[in-house]
Order: sequence, then structure tokens, then C-alpha cells
Amino acid sequence: MSIEKFFNPSSVAIIGASHTQGKIGYIILENFVKGNYKGRVYPVNPDVTPILGREVFPSIKKIQDRVDLAVIAIPAEKVPKVLRECVEKKIKAVIIVSGGFSETGEKGRKLEEELKKIIKNSETRVIGTNSLGVLNTSTNVDTLFNPREKSSRPPPGSIGFISQSGAIGATILDWLAEEQTGISKFISYENAVDVNECDALEYFGNDEKTKVIALYFEGVKDGKRFIEVARKVSKKTPIIALKGGKTEAGKKAAISHTATIAGSAKVYSSVFKQTGIIEADNWEELFDFAKAFLQPLPKGRRIAIVTDGGGFGVLAADECEKQGLELPEPSGKLKKMFRKSFPEYAILSNPIDLTGNANAEMYRTALEECLKSKEFDAAIAITLFQVPALGEELIDVIADLKKYGKPILCCATGGKFTIRLARALEKNGIPVYVSPERAVKAMSVLVKYSNWIKK
Amino acid sequence: MSIEKFFNPSSVAIIGASHTQGKIGYIILENFVKGNYKGRVYPVNPDVTPILGREVFPSIKKIQDRVDLAVIAIPAEKVPKVLRECVEKKIKAVIIVSGGFSETGEKGRKLEEELKKIIKNSETRVIGTNSLGVLNTSTNVDTLFNPREKSSRPPPGSIGFISQSGAIGATILDWLAEEQTGISKFISYENAVDVNECDALEYFGNDEKTKVIALYFEGVKDGKRFIEVARKVSKKTPIIALKGGKTEAGKKAAISHTATIAGSAKVYSSVFKQTGIIEADNWEELFDFAKAFLQPLPKGRRIAIVTDGGGFGVLAADECEKQGLELPEPSGKLKKMFRKSFPEYAILSNPIDLTGNANAEMYRTALEECLKSKEFDAAIAITLFQVPALGEELIDVIADLKKYGKPILCCATGGKFTIRLARALEKNGIPVYVSPERAVKAMSVLVKYSNWIKK
Repeated sequence: MSIEKFFNPSSVAIIGASHTQGKIGYIILENFVKGNYKGRVYPVNPDVTPILGREVFPSIKKIQDRVDLAVIAIPAEKVPKVLRECVEKKIKAVIIVSGGFSETGEKGRKLEEELKKIIKNSETRVIGTNSLGVLNTSTNVDTLFNPREKSSRPPPGSIGFISQSGAIGATILDWLAEEQTGISKFISYENAVDVNECDALEYFGNDEKTKVIALYFEGVKDGKRFIEVARKVSKKTPIIALKGGKTEAGKKAAISHTATIAGSAKVYSSVFKQTGIIEADNWEELFDFAKAFLQPLPKGRRIAIVTDGGGFGVLAADECEKQGLELPEPSGKLKKMFRKSFPEYAILSNPIDLTGNANAEMYRTALEECLKSKEFDAAIAITLFQVPALGEELIDVIADLKKYGKPILCCATGGKFTIRLARALEKNGIPVYVSPERAVKAMSVLVKYSNWIKK
Repeated sequence: MSIEKFFNPSSVAIIGASHTQGKIGYIILENFVKGNYKGRVYPVNPDVTPILGREVFPSIKKIQDRVDLAVIAIPAEKVPKVLRECVEKKIKAVIIVSGGFSETGEKGRKLEEELKKIIKNSETRVIGTNSLGVLNTSTNVDTLFNPREKSSRPPPGSIGFISQSGAIGATILDWLAEEQTGISKFISYENAVDVNECDALEYFGNDEKTKVIALYFEGVKDGKRFIEVARKVSKKTPIIALKGGKTEAGKKAAISHTATIAGSAKVYSSVFKQTGIIEADNWEELFDFAKAFLQPLPKGRRIAIVTDGGGFGVLAADECEKQGLELPEPSGKLKKMFRKSFPEYAILSNPIDLTGNANAEMYRTALEECLKSKEFDAAIAITLFQVPALGEELIDVIADLKKYGKPILCCATGGKFTIRLARALEKNGIPVYVSPERAVKAMSVLVKYSNWIKK
């Protein structure tokens, strides 16, 4: 059964909705009531004093209406009874936020087994236990219960984010919000009583709003299904994966963390290759790579680098060679054109170095001629905004170049002024990286995926 | 001769001080006049109309007083004459900001040869040409000429930053300012008519304010001297180096950029090993590693990891194994102590996982007991501030643990709340990293340097 109702419910019941501000059951209800969610919301609590001005129901059974999604935030030992009621009410989606299950030892593990039995052969699907749940930036379904002032939500976007770990999820969402990198949907499946990475991959793979999937996981329980699903999904939607527990020390930690047998790095690397999954070495790469896919795929590996700082050009060139990307010299024809527009001391090889006197018009000429020509498949623009003549006007210039259908990635490093312009570029769909190496690596991933797709 | 006068001049002449706001010769003068520089300042310009309320001198010869530092910002072809005057006036330090020399071709190269002849056998030392010059955060000597609103200055600190490239220098200084990472001194030597990386290394190595050196360079002209100097300096002051032009593509770009024959990656890696230089793979690592040296050196490789997010613990453990760091299990004695203070579900292996219920007191117990014991040489605290009970009070707790003389590095990721607390930690001398991998790599560099020093 699809997990659609988790993300697009017409009605939501918060079981364990709290009267006390700051409590988990209060925060989750608040997300729905104050967060622009358009469906119906039913707080459930034996104490039926209204919360946030809403009628409170003593139990889920007392709600006459159909409920699409139930969020359970009550002590672990009370969960089985309530879950049974959800099954009876034919609720399709249940998120169990409550902790105190398999992550705490034998007693919790048994309790979890009971939950599995309860939903067996039912229409009810469960995310959790011990889960942060889901975030859908387009419907404002949001079950995240960390205090908002410490933990922000990213804007709507095209990256689908799947995390086995809620802590990693919340932490990175907060970081993405600061970076203003957009997310389509987020899911944290934690103890995975039912819904797991495969369900999430399958659903995100068919989701129109999701153009690329970022996955953090420590291990899978059903390797065969994982390979099947990943192979199918990644043909349409690129999957970037960060795998925790690749070493002995990491595996040991993963067993403590999510009771996952992490499996060897080699096995996973081979699975990734077979399925077209792109492996990230750390979470910064996970999103460096993911946001690169907001750009079209390159048809080849011939990259034009345009820079206003020679040193960053050198570092980018180094990384291109490491990553197997080509930096062809511009043809005589192109150079002639550049010679007319650029000062004498501009360097017309590749990287094209416009020097510290660069302005937006020079960037336009350099990038446009390269992208228009048949000599290059993609461009990396290193735009160090500290130089005197470069500013705001570069945003439109670069955004306009999207019309050539070739990928453009930017590199910009600096303080407030740079950050503001980098965000503006990203708002226009141009991914920006703080180091030339990160931009080049992201480009190489586009090239690799593009090759994989062709095969 | 020492290059001391570049950083601590009692009097400065700005040759080419401009009347026009925004021009290079105006910005540099402004830096000295408005920037809290305590020495005497002499603007020099044939048009003697006062600038910024200061008396202007028609030429350097008309200044009666001794001048320690001259900054030259006039067209290239006029530089030789003025440099000759500086030599005659026995000015010890001259920064040539002017471009139009070897970076622009044959004519400029010849002009540069002339400059070399002029200072031969003189008391005058030259930084440049085409140079951004120097920044000394304690004396406010600041010859950086990028517009301030685009390009900020970092606060005083203990990292000495040497860059062959001014663009990389300005860009990274702006970034360091945003991060509030402190710098002792900065020098950009560019075309290196005279002062080069060796002079800078030697001087920074003896500088009391500089505890660690970050170096960006593309190549050296005198390999033998470089090895001698680096070996001597790095015994006392760790040197982290980022080498541009390690690949064929990068080398080609480096020739265009600084006319440097970049030399093979292998040769340099072997030089780095011989001299104890720590190699960074990119500029983020350059400063990740540099700021780690604000901590004491570890006596061994046994690391305690304390986390409130299991996933980040897993990733840190993975990286520790990759970097050859050990994660010993805490002894029975330690675990017994922890058992008394932590909730039942906290994980007492290594990483120690305090879970999302962590508070500052729990961090104190975990970190203090580990650092006090003979079981660990260092600690990495993963402090995800998104969890409900963790906040401001953790800063003092961690800062207080410095008394045990063992290195502590932190990892924190997130938005505004996290960034504020991370900056507060750094202000207390505790380096913070956005990913567990970066924190672990920085720790491994401390361990490696500590071993190298022992040998």
C-alpha cells in the first residue's frame, strides 16, 4: 500500500495532543493548527479541554469523520491499545512518535513486535516508532517536534530527504533552512516497524515534486528489495546516499544506534554501482550532490571554468583532473571573440581567468559563448564577489544562461555580501558551492549519473 | 633582513593616495586613517589637496620623518622611479600594490626585473608586485584594497595566513570574518619580486601571536630553502599547506596564474612529509586543521566521542577508523559512574550516546570523566543543539574542561540558534565543525603532528 496518506492527508488526529506548551504533543498540534495545513485537525486527549482553540476528542473512536493520518505521541506502553483503535478505524497512516521501544532494550523490542502483529493484514501503515515522522513543504504536514526556535524548516524545493535517523534529519533540515535549500518532502523512519527506506524510495521516486532523493541510512533489512527498488527509482530520479556504519567502529555504533547490522562497505559500494545510487562521503556531499541535480544533465564531460580569481581556478582545474573531467582549451574562434571583449591580461585558456577586474558582462560573454558552442558540455562559474566591479547584476546574467540547457554550477566564498548573492543565485536554481573542489565534485556526479542513465 | 617592518611600522606612506572615494589609493589610506592604526600616516600625491583631513606630500622625498613602510599604488610604469626614491630614503618595507607586471606578459616581466635590480644590495624589502599586501590584526596595519562592504576583516586570533594569491586571500579572509575565526597576520606575496613564502614562514614562525600557519601556494622558486625553513619552523609552529597545481590541468592553470612551475604532487607530498608540513586537500581543510591547533596536542590516539545524535556518532566512528584513531570502550569503572548519572537508554560504549534527552550536565559528566581518566587522550563532543534540553549553558561546561589539558573538538550543525552557540564555543577557544567527519579529520591531524614532533 502506498504511503501517500502520510504526506497528503485530508484529516489528521494528534493522539496525545498536550495542553502544555513546549510538550511534544503540543508542538505537533501547533504545527498543524498554526502552520497553514489545510485539512481537518483532531486533537485527542482524555482531558477534553480545548487546546489552541480546538475541540479535543477523548479517543480516536469518538471522531465521527474519516481520519487519514494519526500521529501518536503517548507513553510507549499505551501505544498498542491506541494503534488497535487506529486499525479498527481503518486509518491508513500512523506515525508513532513515542520512544521507549526497541532502542531502549528487550522490553521495548517486545512491545514493538506487538505493534507489528496489530497492523498485520490491516490497511494501516506505520512510520516509527521513536520517529520524527514527516514534513511535506507543499501541504504543510509537519510532525517534527523539536522546538522551532532551535530547529527551522527548509523552504519548498525539489530535494526529497529520507533519513533513518531523526536526529540527523532534524539537524540537517535546520541547516538546509539556514542555507535556504528547498525540500519537497522529508521522512524519518527510525525503528521501521513497518515503513522503511524502500517504501520511502518508491514513493519519492513517483513524487512529482521530488527531482532528486537524498538518503541517509545505516543498513537495510531486505537487501533484495532494496536493490530492486533503488534500481527502478534511480533510472528516473537520482538517488544520493550517505551510508553510516561503513567501518568496524561505525558498524558497532550503528548497532547501538538503530539496531542495524550495517553490512560491509564493499557490499554497499557494489550495490550502489549496480543500482546507480550515487554515494556521498559525508552529509555535506549528500546535499552538494543533491542540489546539483536541479540543473540539467550534461551530455559529456567537457567543462568550461570561468573565474575572477586565478587561485580558485587552479584548485578547480586540479579537482577536474582528479574527477576525470576534461578542460578543453577554447577554440581559436572563441578566443578571438573573447580577445575583443576582455582586457589584454585576461587569461583565455581553461580556466578562463577574467581577473579581479571582472564584471557581469565579461562573465556573460565567457559563459554564453562557451555554452552556446559545441566545445563544452557544462560550465562552472567561480564568482568571487569581493572584487570591485562584480555584484547583484551577475545573478540575472547567470540565471539567463539556463536557456542553453547545459548545467551551470557556481562557486562563491565569503561573508555577508557573498552569502546574500549566493542565496539569490540558488533562488534562481543555480547551485552555489563554497569551494571550487565541491563544485567540481558535484559536476562530476552529474556527468557520472548522465553516463549511467545512457547505459 | 626581517620583514618585521611590514607588520609593525611606526610610520606609513601611501604613495598614490587618492582623492577619489572608492579608488584603491583612497581605500588603503582610509584603512590606516580610520582603522585604529596608531602610527603616523603620510599620504603621497602630486596633488597636495588634503585627503581625509590629512596633509598630502608631493613625493616621498618631501617627508622629513623616517618612513617604515611605503605602500605603492600607482601605474606600473611609474613604480621604478618611486621605488628608487624609497631605497634612497632607506625605507625598510615596500608593498607594491600596482598590477601590470609579470602577470600581464613580457613587458611587465621586464619592468619587474628592473625592480629587482633597484632593491639589490639595499635595505629595502618588497612585497608584490600586484599584491594585496598585509593585514596585522593587532596593529591594524591593513593594505587590503577590496571594497570593505564586500570584503570583511577577521578578528584578532592565532592563525597566521600566508597566500600566494591575493584573490584567495581576500575571499577567505572575508569568509573567516563571517565565521569569526581569528587571524594574527596575513600576507599575500603574489609575484614575489622579493619577499616570498620562505620569508613569510620564517617570520610567522617566530611571531608570538601566531600559533599555527595556514599557507596557500602554487610553487616555490627555491626548493632547498623552502625545505630548510619549513623544517625549522614546523618544529615550533605547525604549518598547514594547501598546494594549488597538483595535477597537469592545475599546473597549466598555475603557470597562467602566478607564472609558477607548480611541481609534481608527489615531490611536494614527500617534501611535506620530510618537513612536517600538514597537507590540506582544499581551503576548508586548511582552516579546519589550522583552528584545531588552538587546542593542546594529544598525547595519543585514544578518542572519546560524546554525542546526542546516534547517526552523527556512527559517522564520526567511521571516520575515526579511516583516520587510524582509536575509540576504546570506557572501562567498567567509568561505565558504572555513567550508569548512575544517565538515563537507562543512554549508550555507554564509544561513541557515548546521550540521546535526544541530553543536557549540559550529562555532557559535563561524560566528557569530564573521560578526560580526567587515563583511558582517553582527547574528546570530540557532538553537540546537536536542536534537542530540547541543550542550550547556552553547554558553552561554559565545555570551556571549563580545557583545564584537563587534552584537546576537545566540537561538531554542531544547524541554523541560527546553532550558529550562535557554535560561535560562542569558538570564542572560548573550542573549534567547532559542521560535520563529524571534519571534526575527526582535524583531530587526526593533531595526533599526526603530535607524533611528528615527538620524533
